[in-house]
Amino acid sequence: MSKTSLFLKTGLGALLLLSGPAMAQETPEFAKAMDTTFIFNTLLFLICGFLVMWMAAGFAMLEAGMVRTKNVSMQCLKNIGLFSIAGLAYWLVGYNLMYDGVDGGYMGSFSMFTTPDPSEDAGSYAAGSDWFFQMVFCATAASIVSGTIAERIKIWPFFIFTALLTGFLYPITGAWKWGAGWLQVANFQDFAGSTLVHSVGGWAALAGAVILGARVGKYNKQGQVMPMPGSNMPLATLGTFILWLGWFGFNGGSQLALGTIADASAVARIFVNTNIAAAAGVVAAITLTQLMYKKIDLTMALNGALAGLVSITAEPLTPSMPAAAFIGAVGGVIVVFAVPMLDRLKIDDVVGAIPVHLLAGIWGTLIVPFTNGGATYGAQIIGIVAIGAFTLTASTILWYALKLTIGIRPSLEDEVAGLDTAEVGLEAYPEFGQGSQRI
Amino acid sequence: MSKTSLFLKTGLGALLLLSGPAMAQETPEFAKAMDTTFIFNTLLFLICGFLVMWMAAGFAMLEAGMVRTKNVSMQCLKNIGLFSIAGLAYWLVGYNLMYDGVDGGYMGSFSMFTTPDPSEDAGSYAAGSDWFFQMVFCATAASIVSGTIAERIKIWPFFIFTALLTGFLYPITGAWKWGAGWLQVANFQDFAGSTLVHSVGGWAALAGAVILGARVGKYNKQGQVMPMPGSNMPLATLGTFILWLGWFGFNGGSQLALGTIADASAVARIFVNTNIAAAAGVVAAITLTQLMYKKIDLTMALNGALAGLVSITAEPLTPSMPAAAFIGAVGGVIVVFAVPMLDRLKIDDVVGAIPVHLLAGIWGTLIVPFTNGGATYGAQIIGIVAIGAFTLTASTILWYALKLTIGIRPSLEDEVAGLDTAEVGLEAYPEFGQGSQRI
Amino acid sequence: MSKTSLFLKTGLGALLLLSGPAMAQETPEFAKAMDTTFIFNTLLFLICGFLVMWMAAGFAMLEAGMVRTKNVSMQCLKNIGLFSIAGLAYWLVGYNLMYDGVDGGYMGSFSMFTTPDPSEDAGSYAAGSDWFFQMVFCATAASIVSGTIAERIKIWPFFIFTALLTGFLYPITGAWKWGAGWLQVANFQDFAGSTLVHSVGGWAALAGAVILGARVGKYNKQGQVMPMPGSNMPLATLGTFILWLGWFGFNGGSQLALGTIADASAVARIFVNTNIAAAAGVVAAITLTQLMYKKIDLTMALNGALAGLVSITAEPLTPSMPAAAFIGAVGGVIVVFAVPMLDRLKIDDVVGAIPVHLLAGIWGTLIVPFTNGGATYGAQIIGIVAIGAFTLTASTILWYALKLTIGIRPSLEDEVAGLDTAEVGLEAYPEFGQGSQRI
Repeated sequence: MSKTSLFLKTGLGALLLLSGPAMAQETPEFAKAMDTTFIFNTLLFLICGFLVMWMAAGFAMLEAGMVRTKNVSMQCLKNIGLFSIAGLAYWLVGYNLMYDGVDGGYMGSFSMFTTPDPSEDAGSYAAGSDWFFQMVFCATAASIVSGTIAERIKIWPFFIFTALLTGFLYPITGAWKWGAGWLQVANFQDFAGSTLVHSVGGWAALAGAVILGARVGKYNKQGQVMPMPGSNMPLATLGTFILWLGWFGFNGGSQLALGTIADASAVARIFVNTNIAAAAGVVAAITLTQLMYKKIDLTMALNGALAGLVSITAEPLTPSMPAAAFIGAVGGVIVVFAVPMLDRLKIDDVVGAIPVHLLAGIWGTLIVPFTNGGATYGAQIIGIVAIGAFTLTASTILWYALKLTIGIRPSLEDEVAGLDTAEVGLEAYPEFGQGSQRI
Repeated sequence: MSKTSLFLKTGLGALLLLSGPAMAQETPEFAKAMDTTFIFNTLLFLICGFLVMWMAAGFAMLEAGMVRTKNVSMQCLKNIGLFSIAGLAYWLVGYNLMYDGVDGGYMGSFSMFTTPDPSEDAGSYAAGSDWFFQMVFCATAASIVSGTIAERIKIWPFFIFTALLTGFLYPITGAWKWGAGWLQVANFQDFAGSTLVHSVGGWAALAGAVILGARVGKYNKQGQVMPMPGSNMPLATLGTFILWLGWFGFNGGSQLALGTIADASAVARIFVNTNIAAAAGVVAAITLTQLMYKKIDLTMALNGALAGLVSITAEPLTPSMPAAAFIGAVGGVIVVFAVPMLDRLKIDDVVGAIPVHLLAGIWGTLIVPFTNGGATYGAQIIGIVAIGAFTLTASTILWYALKLTIGIRPSLEDEVAGLDTAEVGLEAYPEFGQGSQRI
Repeated sequence: MSKTSLFLKTGLGALLLLSGPAMAQETPEFAKAMDTTFIFNTLLFLICGFLVMWMAAGFAMLEAGMVRTKNVSMQCLKNIGLFSIAGLAYWLVGYNLMYDGVDGGYMGSFSMFTTPDPSEDAGSYAAGSDWFFQMVFCATAASIVSGTIAERIKIWPFFIFTALLTGFLYPITGAWKWGAGWLQVANFQDFAGSTLVHSVGGWAALAGAVILGARVGKYNKQGQVMPMPGSNMPLATLGTFILWLGWFGFNGGSQLALGTIADASAVARIFVNTNIAAAAGVVAAITLTQLMYKKIDLTMALNGALAGLVSITAEPLTPSMPAAAFIGAVGGVIVVFAVPMLDRLKIDDVVGAIPVHLLAGIWGTLIVPFTNGGATYGAQIIGIVAIGAFTLTASTILWYALKLTIGIRPSLEDEVAGLDTAEVGLEAYPEFGQGSQRI
């Protein structure tokens, strides 16, 4: 990082400077479009990639805020662990399974992604920046699962499932569309992953929630729902803001290019629509909960934002702003109705990830043809059903296999005592309140 | 997001690559300055825009940390709600009222901002990126109000005020200067909004604080100030760091361009001065509180940072580093003296937003001619007074109208019980301590 | 920020537009490579700089979560204060001492860095952007110290030490390598600062921890270690995620250039390796703690991530992905063994900063020649020893001087009561639990 080496490194510019400004003006050396395009595209992947990486912290905070104190350390551990495991699994298996030679088919090759040699960085972006951007998407799918099945799963089966989800399940369905597989051929459209990322996470979460069963005490013998309020609302709020911020990277980066005026304008429109959809999701959720319950529900407002974001993710570019507001608002409405509906079905989704990521993801994918003339409702339904069927089936098999082998659920005593004590050995807030005495 | 489509999308670069490196070197295609300028400017708006968006989370955490536990969920709800409402109101009314055809006058047109068609994206930046950047500024003004009047306002009147502030009040005074209205003609200078954003928020907050009155128990019958310490200092600290980070976008992005060496250098100087002013604000506040109270007050240190940031916002480009340090340090001093002064006036400002945003905002705007030869003290005073008079008057009218119609203040019982129970129905920390038993 | 002025500012692009698209196509004006290189390089410094600035918040949250409630406000104050002091000291003394005319020697000049005049912004990046980027690195070294010596140091001696560390100690050893001093001549390699930043902070922390002694009650008379669990695990987790995010700027920005395809590809590879090393550090720590203790330790997982990051920092560019995983994993292993080892030596390191920053920093620096053919083990050892000897000696002298003059340790009563009460006068969580009653 010495200033000397900087001059040596930035070859061309420095050379021109050394020859003096007068001479530089006489013989101006122009920037090659190939170079600036490459740099802009790479920069887009890196910036949007770090924003999506930051979403891992958003999920961690959202979930840490929505579980009871006795399971907060566990939830933190799951989140730092899953992001790490996802990064390794996507490198060892996932990326090439998703992108390498899919060619209209069902999956790519079983080979490891290797850091490109400098000399191999041909193309219109740095291969490393693309891997980084795709990897954080993969990790997002795993984050979704973590929230739904919180407070009642052992740590190692969760980590094993994460490795399989991010190494195999997500990459396979990803290959179908983004890897230029059969769903791409079938004209299924999913710009940034309402289905490929969010619904995949949601289906995997749903399978887990059903197989695990509800938390002890969540549904009593009379069939009533016992509220188990989250322990830290500002953390949940912080998590939501982090996710909102990260989503600009999630959707904006999915334009995949920034090297032309058209691409830059597209990324800008995506930012606008992403924000409008989230805002509309919040306003829909707060208005609706006020009307239905005479009070605004903060957690519904937060999930309304997320549902708006998931909804616009399948097509953040073509909608006009009113259309984006409509798409996001319906997302918010879905959450308000789906959360109690899941409770009636006794599916215990701790953070509301199934309504937010699965249902709003389906909605967002379905509505693509409303604004994108190149999409068809038929192809959208095929994609939603195919990816759902695969992910739900494969997840169910995996969860059952884990259940039958190492077991997935802690003992009743451990669950009542809290997983922080039983599995992590570390209370999240050792000096506050009565955490572990509560069910 | 398939790699195939990426190659198709990035037309030019890909084309050159297909023709092979040798041929590409023979016929180099150069990047047009028009294109790179457009992309750099748009990228500046998008990056700085997401940093300013992140400030919404900063205000949320700062305020959640500075209120008592019984009002924390409410404060979170206000912040996610106001950011959403601001985004919609600025789209539906605000942006065009601020920018469309002001032409030396008092306001623009009453028409909705529409997402530009790709083909309409002429100019030197993407229209969507500019809207996004301006929208997050507007939301910032609303965030300021939220903190001052915390713990004693009902949720819906706050949201209605937010909609009117972000749809009408902020855009009108914004039009006077940034929309090229009469204050621009009068040579009023406010680079990134010490007055246009921070003081506007501060005046609106002041009107609200006076009309609402103080929190129950804040000033006892003997006229003493009863301390009501914030419930979560690390969250307040986190919020301050978030705001500090976001401010690089706030001030840096206000250069509005990145496409030339001069613009890039200017953005860099703005980053430097912004950081120096904040640091000087902190050091001034900790030194002064040590001298005055024999202990450093953490909340003063945090507000010192923010006051330094607000102070430099009116002119972050022209000051030398010593001048930036001086401007920021005075901001820190203002906070240390103004916070107890407000208490003597029995104006109950929960987070200190009036000293930080209004008073330091006035200071920063006044001092512009000290470093910017193009500014005059006369024009600065005209701008401060005109915008202050308008915003204070209009805010007072709005708050009174809300008070006389739907009412703005919760019942005494609700306020004592805490707004989380009364208005939100959700405790922020249900398992910690004794939150709601405290006044 | 008026749209009018924007058009005036972005001269060239606007001019071309005014002449109409047809004419613009006839006489295309191309972007100069000198200009785009300058802008890309500056942008890299600014983006990576704000990411590293954000690490200050990461340290604040990590430390606030790892100390007991009675010292949380103090820890927040230390972190906002140190970042401010570091910024001022690096401007007043540090930067030029590190970079101005070192020329193979031991330090630069004792003169103040001055904001460059616009006309002076020659070179291949904006001077302000470079200062900003280097300044946040300097602040990072100070942040490291803060964590180790938490809960038992008075505020002013800490601030004075911070000023001396960031104004003198860090810049002097920095000059040896990055200022092109004698270690640069000796071919010592440290890409982004495993030694120059992290070990320097670690040595200064070690000196402080030894001279201060352990916290009251940490090691009982029987020589047992008494656990003093951190008070807020989600904050510690948040801090770790923030640091992970910021590290992309830390390592990526240390490429120092983005203006060519080679530089952009290098930054991308650095992002990839940085993430892989962190992930491997986590997986190593969780696997190892599971094997050793039958439970995964969350704080070890968090420190595993950080140790992985520190380990890869000396050379994030040349390793292949497997090599990066190996380097990071060893970092995680080091932490798991070194934390209890320090306790056996009765060195009380509250957050584990010595294992993470000093030991993993040494490891990362030592292993550089494994992947970088230009480095030698001899030169690496010389650099590690020289910088360690200087920093440890100088820090020891400074800590002793502070101890003998103003005193560094609070009274026993103050320490037991907690520094929030004694030094800050503000509890961090006044409504939660029993904070200050605990030792």
